[in-house]
Amino acid sequence: MTTTAELKAKFAELQSTLAAYGHATGVLFTDGETVAPKGSAALRGRTLAVLSGITYELQTGADTVALLGELRSRSDELDPVTRRAVSESLRSIERMARIPKDEYVAYQELVANAGSVWHEAKNTNNFELFRPYLEKIFDTNRRIYGYTDPDKAVYDAALNEYERGLDTARCDAFFGALREKIVPLMKKVAAKNTAPEPFSLRRYPIWKQRILSDKLMDMLLIDRNYCVIGETEHPFTANFSRHDVRITTHYYEDNVLSSMFSVVHEGGHALYELGMGEHLDFTCLAGGVSMGIHESQSRFYENIIGRSRAFSEIVVPEFKKIFPDETADMDADAFYRAICRSEPSLIRTEADELTYCLHVMVRYELERGILEGKYEVADLPRLWAEKMDEYLGVEVPDDTHGVLQDSHWSGGSIGYFPSYALGSAYGAQMLAKMGESFDVYGAVRSGDLSPINKWLGERIWQHGCMYDPVDLFERCCEAPFDPKYFTDYLEAKYTDLYNL
Amino acid sequence: MTTTAELKAKFAELQSTLAAYGHATGVLFTDGETVAPKGSAALRGRTLAVLSGITYELQTGADTVALLGELRSRSDELDPVTRRAVSESLRSIERMARIPKDEYVAYQELVANAGSVWHEAKNTNNFELFRPYLEKIFDTNRRIYGYTDPDKAVYDAALNEYERGLDTARCDAFFGALREKIVPLMKKVAAKNTAPEPFSLRRYPIWKQRILSDKLMDMLLIDRNYCVIGETEHPFTANFSRHDVRITTHYYEDNVLSSMFSVVHEGGHALYELGMGEHLDFTCLAGGVSMGIHESQSRFYENIIGRSRAFSEIVVPEFKKIFPDETADMDADAFYRAICRSEPSLIRTEADELTYCLHVMVRYELERGILEGKYEVADLPRLWAEKMDEYLGVEVPDDTHGVLQDSHWSGGSIGYFPSYALGSAYGAQMLAKMGESFDVYGAVRSGDLSPINKWLGERIWQHGCMYDPVDLFERCCEAPFDPKYFTDYLEAKYTDLYNL
Repeated sequence: MTTTAELKAKFAELQSTLAAYGHATGVLFTDGETVAPKGSAALRGRTLAVLSGITYELQTGADTVALLGELRSRSDELDPVTRRAVSESLRSIERMARIPKDEYVAYQELVANAGSVWHEAKNTNNFELFRPYLEKIFDTNRRIYGYTDPDKAVYDAALNEYERGLDTARCDAFFGALREKIVPLMKKVAAKNTAPEPFSLRRYPIWKQRILSDKLMDMLLIDRNYCVIGETEHPFTANFSRHDVRITTHYYEDNVLSSMFSVVHEGGHALYELGMGEHLDFTCLAGGVSMGIHESQSRFYENIIGRSRAFSEIVVPEFKKIFPDETADMDADAFYRAICRSEPSLIRTEADELTYCLHVMVRYELERGILEGKYEVADLPRLWAEKMDEYLGVEVPDDTHGVLQDSHWSGGSIGYFPSYALGSAYGAQMLAKMGESFDVYGAVRSGDLSPINKWLGERIWQHGCMYDPVDLFERCCEAPFDPKYFTDYLEAKYTDLYNL
Repeated sequence: MTTTAELKAKFAELQSTLAAYGHATGVLFTDGETVAPKGSAALRGRTLAVLSGITYELQTGADTVALLGELRSRSDELDPVTRRAVSESLRSIERMARIPKDEYVAYQELVANAGSVWHEAKNTNNFELFRPYLEKIFDTNRRIYGYTDPDKAVYDAALNEYERGLDTARCDAFFGALREKIVPLMKKVAAKNTAPEPFSLRRYPIWKQRILSDKLMDMLLIDRNYCVIGETEHPFTANFSRHDVRITTHYYEDNVLSSMFSVVHEGGHALYELGMGEHLDFTCLAGGVSMGIHESQSRFYENIIGRSRAFSEIVVPEFKKIFPDETADMDADAFYRAICRSEPSLIRTEADELTYCLHVMVRYELERGILEGKYEVADLPRLWAEKMDEYLGVEVPDDTHGVLQDSHWSGGSIGYFPSYALGSAYGAQMLAKMGESFDVYGAVRSGDLSPINKWLGERIWQHGCMYDPVDLFERCCEAPFDPKYFTDYLEAKYTDLYNL
């Protein structure tokens, strides 16, 4: 009979092999997005398909299922990491096994093709081109959740896919609380808005913006030995291990703040991944646990730290060193006002901290309505315009700046958007909890973020996927999630900023 | 019984899977050399080890051996490409099988470690640090060729490994012919050398050098859709498929010619790979057939085209457009003299066209002598200095600029150097043959290299590994290799350049 130690060794080898495939496919993807020749896309798609086929077999093959089953039956003899890795692996195999293979393969093809159709539709403002794909994507999602989660309401299942433990009841309460506070706040702000700061409209040479990026990474205490910055149309973070993380940004000569906050945002994602516990190396538990927790980290650094008065005080001197000509009239206070300027707008990714969640809310209500059969895909452009008017008071001029702006649905990600808003709110509660241990903005003002990184590292980063997100959050904050921390944070910040 | 069509389909699938692994490992390697974070090296080494272990199993496992054996027994029923792919696969498996696995694994570890020791030894001018590794590398090579090629003299086996069909008799004849012509020519040139052209010593901004690189790639008619330029310490070409080729260069502000000729050299390698026949896609026959043939292409574009008077005429106007301030005193004739300037020097990779082969000759004689037991590794520094003095008349100041300058031996590449010289000589004979069909330098002067690319594409590039290098060369030139073409080429060029 095989000993438990032998089974564990076999499982460790399997996970290590899967980590190698994950590294390889991750590098292929990142390389494809950053430096690979344009014409190599089809070849890369083929290579990724071969590798993902092999990975799928390794993860779900009969040998693996037997090994995992045997290990589960000996759960009592396993250390906590192995026990969790076994149960997480089995969970995903069991869910996967419920989906008919034909349907799964057809869906992969559908979303692979939908991406380029969406691009084309967005570029030509042609929703009708994309509509049949989007209808199939919603239909397939509905069917797939019927297989994997027959006991759950379909949108609850979708939410749970991206943020385990999240459901429509929690979302409704959360968004309800947000709307109640944010909408009136936004209106008061709008009445007080003045012209933008002149320095924020100037041109900043891109080669100097690259120097600023390096400086920002240093300020965040990111170990550059394990993390590099690439350049892409849409910024992202790719993580393969705590020893190999890539972030990307996009430089616009006429918008220095765009890349600055991309770097700080992606830097937050990177810190999370770089801070994984060594004990999780080469296991399926290495890596951030959920989108909501990941966004809580990225938006914490971007907004709670990066868009604070304290950070303005330490970053403005760096701006003046790097861009002496462009920043003669810049001071910390004016900079702070510029980076926090709030104004209802059309594009989610460019929205300010205050209005951001309303953009998410529009998507939440629409994707939920369609998945639940309340809305039709064909009505999306009209519904989008109505909701944008209702929540943000902006008029949508075309679908390119409306329903076609985000890639998520084309990639099959339905139920993903709420985690952006949730992450922002998680961060505010973490800030409050952190403040019980030390003076957070005092640390920022001193230029040494290490107490912040240490606190998040201990409570969030090192744990990888050891705990479900809700559990992890409650261990971190020693309390259940409460959106009040976020609305209080926004209210205090904007009341002060705009003298409301 | 399995039909031949079924066996062929199985073999095609195997080769296609191997091509995917090749693409993935190639991208991992290139990413590691170009943009990956420094600290990710150990992780990448681990990932590459996992993937290469799996590749090795796929290539040599019992299923593969049985499949290939069955296909070989049905050779008559196979198309030429499949027949060649089967025989090439079997050849490499059969050679591999002769090496005891323990010894093979130990050797892989040895060369993996030797690389960083060599780096350290080179940086600190400490040959003794590297010596024990180099001794083991030579010893292991000797033993391994004893297993794989028991009937061949050991250095013949080593040469054959990098350039099938090459042996010491051919090398001796080749290098003998070179020495006889080049040494006196070099002495005559030295007597006539004047001061370098001033424009070649100026500083050229790197961002403008990047524009020059793009221009050069365009002049070579390289399809940028499938080929990008990266930046590394040592330039190289990485090829994964005719749809994904990467070249790299290194920019020095004070040496614009360095990157220019790196780009043209690596561009030659890239053209070869981009010109592979579509019929070889996803087979083991896609890719250049040997180092000698590969260098014949890269050095053809670098020297025969790039360092020609005709190319000077078309590239100088581009220099003047990109670098108007730096090139006021540049004209085609002065440029041509500058890029062909010949002077004995210490470093092979920086050597000019005339003296280059003498650097190779030093390595040829030394590596052969050690492999054959005539020399000791411990004596290499002394022997190196003696040979450099004898052939080039230069004094070697230290091992960093002597025996430690090249990475090849540390990576286990013994028998590789001669292919650099051979490639240069191949190119000269190709030039002569090409000249029978059209006016080669007339084409260059017109700025349209397409007749040259077409000729090489038809005769060399498209064939991949379908023919052994000697066979391919003779099909291309319709004659056996004769070093006289190369010595005649050099004699004519330098007699004209220096008014000898």
